[in-house]
Amino acid sequence: MALARSGIELRCQCIDTHSKFIHPKFIQNVNLTPSGPHCKNVEVIATLKDGREVCLDPTAPWVKLIIKAILDKANTKPENVS
Amino acid sequence: MALARSGIELRCQCIDTHSKFIHPKFIQNVNLTPSGPHCKNVEVIATLKDGREVCLDPTAPWVKLIIKAILDKANTKPENVS
Repeated sequence: MALARSGIELRCQCIDTHSKFIHPKFIQNVNLTPSGPHCKNVEVIATLKDGREVCLDPTAPWVKLIIKAILDKANTKPENVS
Repeated sequence: MALARSGIELRCQCIDTHSKFIHPKFIQNVNLTPSGPHCKNVEVIATLKDGREVCLDPTAPWVKLIIKAILDKANTKPENVS
């Protein structure tokens, strides 16, 4: 997975995207960069638990589902898990 | 906005969250960290265009809307804008 990386994102960071499903348990965090003057593409970069960074396709349903699942888990506070 | 930051996230990074709406035009990127052994909270950290990092409430509707808007913009490819 090619990832052009500079300190400050002055251009697109993703050259292509990883199409196959990645199980959320392997994902450390997900970084969303809106399109802008620096890059016309919306970029979704997952950092995996093994340290690798992977560009994901922001239009892929499974990517949207993973992001939704991460946010939804915030609603299930660990304390009130009966 | 207090943000405890270490190189590798071994603990929670957000001490509290910014409750007021931040317009997407000020947001450089958004980082989502699922809850896990390192931190029981889902953490959403926005990096603003002025370089500041702000912890957002993952359960706040406007935060979810901003994330959805970022992803949805990927569907409107600049080329096919008629």
